[in-house]
Amino acid sequence: MAKLEMWVEFASTYSYLSVMRIDALAEAAGVETVWTPFLLGPIFRMNGWDTSPFNIFEAKGRYMWRDVERRAEKHGLSFRRPPEDQRPPFPQNGLHAARMALIGLEARWGRPFCRAVYAAQFVEGRDIGEAALIAALAKEAGASAEEIEAAGGEAVKAQLRGVTERAAEIGIFGAPSFVVGEELYWGDDRLEEAIEAARRLPD
Amino acid sequence: MAKLEMWVEFASTYSYLSVMRIDALAEAAGVETVWTPFLLGPIFRMNGWDTSPFNIFEAKGRYMWRDVERRAEKHGLSFRRPPEDQRPPFPQNGLHAARMALIGLEARWGRPFCRAVYAAQFVEGRDIGEAALIAALAKEAGASAEEIEAAGGEAVKAQLRGVTERAAEIGIFGAPSFVVGEELYWGDDRLEEAIEAARRLPD
Repeated sequence: MAKLEMWVEFASTYSYLSVMRIDALAEAAGVETVWTPFLLGPIFRMNGWDTSPFNIFEAKGRYMWRDVERRAEKHGLSFRRPPEDQRPPFPQNGLHAARMALIGLEARWGRPFCRAVYAAQFVEGRDIGEAALIAALAKEAGASAEEIEAAGGEAVKAQLRGVTERAAEIGIFGAPSFVVGEELYWGDDRLEEAIEAARRLPD
Repeated sequence: MAKLEMWVEFASTYSYLSVMRIDALAEAAGVETVWTPFLLGPIFRMNGWDTSPFNIFEAKGRYMWRDVERRAEKHGLSFRRPPEDQRPPFPQNGLHAARMALIGLEARWGRPFCRAVYAAQFVEGRDIGEAALIAALAKEAGASAEEIEAAGGEAVKAQLRGVTERAAEIGIFGAPSFVVGEELYWGDDRLEEAIEAARRLPD
């Protein structure tokens, strides 16, 4: 059984950083990981928010964009926000990406697909809310036509709802989040701590 | 001129961690620091909040208490939350402490006083909203009777209001925050990064 669960939302800037960083760290530590995409929207609505807190609380939002830029640079990751007049809205709609990722993460193409979605969004400035883009990225990552078709089906819709409900139940309120045993860690800046906790977990 | 400004709120758990950690880190890096106590209450009210977001958003609050406990342990700091029925309310009222600290930080006893206030609150479980406790801690740290008297005066009240307005102006939305040149860093988990940025600043 995997010792570290990573929970990500596709619209989340800090999730981008963790998705790009986790495999190298986990491999070095000998820690197996499971990735779970979920939706923050329903969880934010429980707080009475109809958008990201980074939009609602202006100073915090301004800070986040700069902080992510600094952290990306520190970790050698590209991060580019398009000029204001060419910028897709934030947060983007991660629904199609999350459904496709649930299919892909049960096959071999899930992680490359997730990385490609984040790169399309936060490096290339594309809008991942478009189903056609998501299908194209899945295909490039190795998805079959049947798998791409399945991402629009009722089964995966129900799966995503269930996963998002479980996130709320275990106390997840932001992304990325990491679960190791009984412990919850929130934020890309807790990734190393979560990996270390997983490494020390008894078998 | 100091290269790193640390902004703290006395009710803030994460500020406690940074206040206890900063001097050793700054000394090792050869970085001079200035500490500024301010009030988060007026800044939270600009978000429409009448208390800490850790009270308003339950899952986030639950997480914070555990996260601070883990971080304190990691850094070898005591951190004790009294049993629920003996617990002072959170957040405590940091008004008297902040006024006294503004006096103390211009004298030699400011930093030991700040550390003593945080220890009273987060190790001994005392209520730092009490003016008598604040006066006693200031006296122990080396304050004169005149200085303690001055902490109740109009000049320092105006100073604290001014400082809090300046915090909002420079985009501070939480505590601790660190300012290095044009860069803002938020959270105890950014302390090392802020120190490193200050170390690299040209003279």
